[in-house]
Amino acid sequence: MMRGKFISLEGGEGVGKSTQAQMLSDALEMRGLGVLETREPGGTPGAEAIRKLLLDKQFDWDVAAEALLFAAARSDHVANAIGPALNEGQWVVCDRFIDSSRAYQAGGDDLSDDAILSLHTIGSYALMPDITFLLQAESEDVAQRLAERDGDNADRIGSRSADYHARVAQRFRDLAAMDPERFVLIDAAGSPEEVHARIMRAMAPLLGEGG
Amino acid sequence: MMRGKFISLEGGEGVGKSTQAQMLSDALEMRGLGVLETREPGGTPGAEAIRKLLLDKQFDWDVAAEALLFAAARSDHVANAIGPALNEGQWVVCDRFIDSSRAYQAGGDDLSDDAILSLHTIGSYALMPDITFLLQAESEDVAQRLAERDGDNADRIGSRSADYHARVAQRFRDLAAMDPERFVLIDAAGSPEEVHARIMRAMAPLLGEGG
Repeated sequence: MMRGKFISLEGGEGVGKSTQAQMLSDALEMRGLGVLETREPGGTPGAEAIRKLLLDKQFDWDVAAEALLFAAARSDHVANAIGPALNEGQWVVCDRFIDSSRAYQAGGDDLSDDAILSLHTIGSYALMPDITFLLQAESEDVAQRLAERDGDNADRIGSRSADYHARVAQRFRDLAAMDPERFVLIDAAGSPEEVHARIMRAMAPLLGEGG
Repeated sequence: MMRGKFISLEGGEGVGKSTQAQMLSDALEMRGLGVLETREPGGTPGAEAIRKLLLDKQFDWDVAAEALLFAAARSDHVANAIGPALNEGQWVVCDRFIDSSRAYQAGGDDLSDDAILSLHTIGSYALMPDITFLLQAESEDVAQRLAERDGDNADRIGSRSADYHARVAQRFRDLAAMDPERFVLIDAAGSPEEVHARIMRAMAPLLGEGG
């Protein structure tokens, strides 16, 4: 059995990752490939239980505990869903993976990128995607997409908008620059179909299709 | 405010750690010291919630996810209980700490002692006890103490008895040999009062009392 390919979609909130994950999964299935479409945090019962702890407002996790919990959830996700699927020859499309931890949790004073990667080595045997699509959008487009979501969510994210989103976007770009073989930058402007077409052009080599 | 001292009690099941933690805490309080008596896994609401996930039979955590969850629980315990208590001048008596993770979780093929220590560095800023009492008992005495507990528990632990307990006990001895400044080996044979007297003799220098 040939091992499947592992594809992650990354980027800030509101850039259209989950829509693109769905469209990519559909396109792969139409080519006759077995596909596991999944997302983080979550993807297994254990990881979903950890996700609940992370979101529970009664706990005041500090940055280190939060990073360890995310790493534990990812460890379970890799051990019980992503790893087995790849071994069975399925292709895996994952909405957020290790790079989200690196962009959101590292970069402060407390936690380095190396620390996040060492948790990933211990928890998930340093499994990295074969290809990572980094969706990039203009901040005005993102603000509009978030505003179109439910009001509460838009407010909560919107309140830490400009600076916060710019910093996360910059960290994603830094990660992509550090690993240009794995990352593909995707312009998230335009219709979902236009963005999907950009992703499929970048997928061609992996699919053995003419570029 | 002078920082308090941090004391851990370690050893396998049934060697009398919790009894000795209680007696030691009482003795420190009788000397007018503020004492936080605590235990792992647990010690804070967040750590207790993680403990529940660890014990929940619906999840099949592998060794890496388990180690990350223990480290997350310890991180919360240090950030929200042990650390603040020490900073306020309290003495902390903890029934199990990092050395239990090292003895129980490391040593297999998957997880090294260095890996466990790196999780501790990230999660708990590598906080180590000022002194660690390793309680050591003959396996026959342990078997008897466990049999005197509730039947289920005795059976569950008893079933993996001889070899398993011997291996854990050996790992604890190895850890103590690696760090003789911090570890004090305590013979757990005899009455609780006799064992307590041995611990208090070893505490004398820390208490500024004649040896």
